[in-house]
Amino acid sequence: MVRGMTTRGYHHGDLRRALLAAAVEAIDESGPAALSLRDLARRAGVSHAAPAHHFGDKAGLLTALAVEGFDLLAEALGWAGDDLLEIGVAYVRFAVDHRAHFEVMFAPGLYRADDPEVAAARARAGAALRGGVATLPDRPAVEPARDALAAWSIVHGFATLWLAGALPSDAGRDPEAAARAVIRRLFE
Amino acid sequence: MVRGMTTRGYHHGDLRRALLAAAVEAIDESGPAALSLRDLARRAGVSHAAPAHHFGDKAGLLTALAVEGFDLLAEALGWAGDDLLEIGVAYVRFAVDHRAHFEVMFAPGLYRADDPEVAAARARAGAALRGGVATLPDRPAVEPARDALAAWSIVHGFATLWLAGALPSDAGRDPEAAARAVIRRLFE
Repeated sequence: MVRGMTTRGYHHGDLRRALLAAAVEAIDESGPAALSLRDLARRAGVSHAAPAHHFGDKAGLLTALAVEGFDLLAEALGWAGDDLLEIGVAYVRFAVDHRAHFEVMFAPGLYRADDPEVAAARARAGAALRGGVATLPDRPAVEPARDALAAWSIVHGFATLWLAGALPSDAGRDPEAAARAVIRRLFE
Repeated sequence: MVRGMTTRGYHHGDLRRALLAAAVEAIDESGPAALSLRDLARRAGVSHAAPAHHFGDKAGLLTALAVEGFDLLAEALGWAGDDLLEIGVAYVRFAVDHRAHFEVMFAPGLYRADDPEVAAARARAGAALRGGVATLPDRPAVEPARDALAAWSIVHGFATLWLAGALPSDAGRDPEAAARAVIRRLFE
């Protein structure tokens, strides 16, 4: 928790990280639309000018969160190796563990989606996902772009429905186990 | 457009419908979180008490929109017959054509998701989707609940990514054609 600390307590990079952590906390509570830089400064216990100094405006802050999110996602998918099933499970785990980042990343109207850092981080995550498609069993008509889109759709849809609490109770309580069963459907 | 009309211009049911239509318009512009009953009254050109009279509060209004959305979805899936591919394409078409409803339906924190009318409408939509799973080709291990969840995940994920503008440009410009190709992956 960063509450009660003051600007003087931070090195430059630490304050930036503390503001991003406070933003994640605020988004977990109320969603990205309700976030304001003024609330963020109060939450982080810093001057109300600090968030603007680091991020310019709210879109700048959410752009930084989107970059961080796509970087974390690329890292998580990379750790999963080159097996599409494990990559898909890692995608769902990332969404569940980093709900605020995930929500911002896929709300491009709220941030600068064409920012070069966002584009680069998003490309790294996309490459990790597409890498797993190469592990799919041979079929009569392999279409890598279409297969990657199908894999992305199924894991993104599962994660989104899980986070929305929309799934029936027979989907179980463990998102990774349920996701694993659903993603296996692509291999049959 | 309903702007400029007054409460006296409406029969009871018409005013309710006009308020729901104005809410859809407002959500299309700014998302459900930003919606306020006061803005809605101004947008519909009615007294500021009219939305509260019809819906109680913002959660009540969004509950009514969720009911309407799940009803429209159940109807759209029903028209698609019992072929899972066509049902999936109809799901994506619904999301693209009724973006505001779709966004509210899957943001259950914003409305009364346990409202009996919501539950009934959601169950009708779910039954229409599950009905299509029966048309999947026989495979060694058919698991209807798991297969329905996989089908729901892939169409929900595709629709969500499409609406977020997250898909690569090689996914094309026609959401129905792209969805059809992706859903076919479940049949191979």
